[in-house]
Amino acid sequence: MPFVRISTFKSSPPANRKAIANAVYEAMRETIGIPEGDCFIVVTAHEEDELFIDSSFMGMQRSDRFILVHITLSQGRSVAQKQALYAKIAERLQGAIGVAGDDVMTVLTENAYVDWSFGKGEAQFVLNPPSWVTKNEKGN
Amino acid sequence: MPFVRISTFKSSPPANRKAIANAVYEAMRETIGIPEGDCFIVVTAHEEDELFIDSSFMGMQRSDRFILVHITLSQGRSVAQKQALYAKIAERLQGAIGVAGDDVMTVLTENAYVDWSFGKGEAQFVLNPPSWVTKNEKGN
Amino acid sequence: MPFVRISTFKSSPPANRKAIANAVYEAMRETIGIPEGDCFIVVTAHEEDELFIDSSFMGMQRSDRFILVHITLSQGRSVAQKQALYAKIAERLQGAIGVAGDDVMTVLTENAYVDWSFGKGEAQFVLNPPSWVTKNEKGN
Repeated sequence: MPFVRISTFKSSPPANRKAIANAVYEAMRETIGIPEGDCFIVVTAHEEDELFIDSSFMGMQRSDRFILVHITLSQGRSVAQKQALYAKIAERLQGAIGVAGDDVMTVLTENAYVDWSFGKGEAQFVLNPPSWVTKNEKGN
Repeated sequence: MPFVRISTFKSSPPANRKAIANAVYEAMRETIGIPEGDCFIVVTAHEEDELFIDSSFMGMQRSDRFILVHITLSQGRSVAQKQALYAKIAERLQGAIGVAGDDVMTVLTENAYVDWSFGKGEAQFVLNPPSWVTKNEKGN
Repeated sequence: MPFVRISTFKSSPPANRKAIANAVYEAMRETIGIPEGDCFIVVTAHEEDELFIDSSFMGMQRSDRFILVHITLSQGRSVAQKQALYAKIAERLQGAIGVAGDDVMTVLTENAYVDWSFGKGEAQFVLNPPSWVTKNEKGN
């Protein structure tokens, strides 16, 4: 159910894109309880004159390996779950393509379960809420 | 007032983009009461190594004709309105370019009426709320 | 802390992108109290058959110089702050590249302070909330 938009620089090898997407998917699987196969991720590579970032804000040392992970997901995750998610995304990306934690930024935007249609023009979570929906809505 | 980002694969013919945007606009007109001309839509085509989707999650059979419709809109639509919107988007897209319902995913992100400036540096909905704003804020 | 996605047409000179990003950053600095260096902005240029906009909705006269500024930011800004932000973005963009106010559209999506990780896999605003976080959460 998360939909993820990932922004990188074009200097990042295209071959890395699948590894980046997979690392973020696995991190979400491990920390916020998404079901298997719940993977909808766009990775967009930008020219240097398209993606403007501060190289040191909040005490980081950002490079042209910078990765911004913007996740749209249903509300209900606890603060602890979000903290675990950020840590795991950074860890998984470092393991997958060797990027430093300073170069990984994550931003979340929450919506509601009714805000998703996975196909057939239906609101699957309205018609038939699975158990993990109920669980996550309570923030567990 | 909705702002829509649509993601497709590059294998989808560029000539379809206008038809896709128009189908989504018409579906919003018919189901969630947006006024005529309220059309701000980006359609981005992605390479196979940029857009990663699960081909079967939630029981669908997704293909390279997959279309993800991400709508940012003001809060206030009812569950029934959202369900009608999902159904109409799938129906309209099938009518326009023959894509199957399994290949149409829709995601909503809500904001508030104060979160929109349509031009001139003004917050039009704050200065002069039109009647359909009031109506929709009640979820009617 | 804001993350900004800006959409333009490809007919807009690439050399303008940095000026556009900088104008939006300065407008946010002046009106919604973001700290120095808090700049994370993507500017994407679209072909005419990718970005579909109504040329007159809400009484504007939009041209191919149209700029859509989509800002994801933490909740807590007042209506007055948002109005000042819209006005300043339009003013700064006009000063920077001469674009008319009619061609500047701004959309906000709010999230929470816990929804940001600026690096190292940490939720910086959870671990160590700076004073301007507390201030802005009150909508001052």
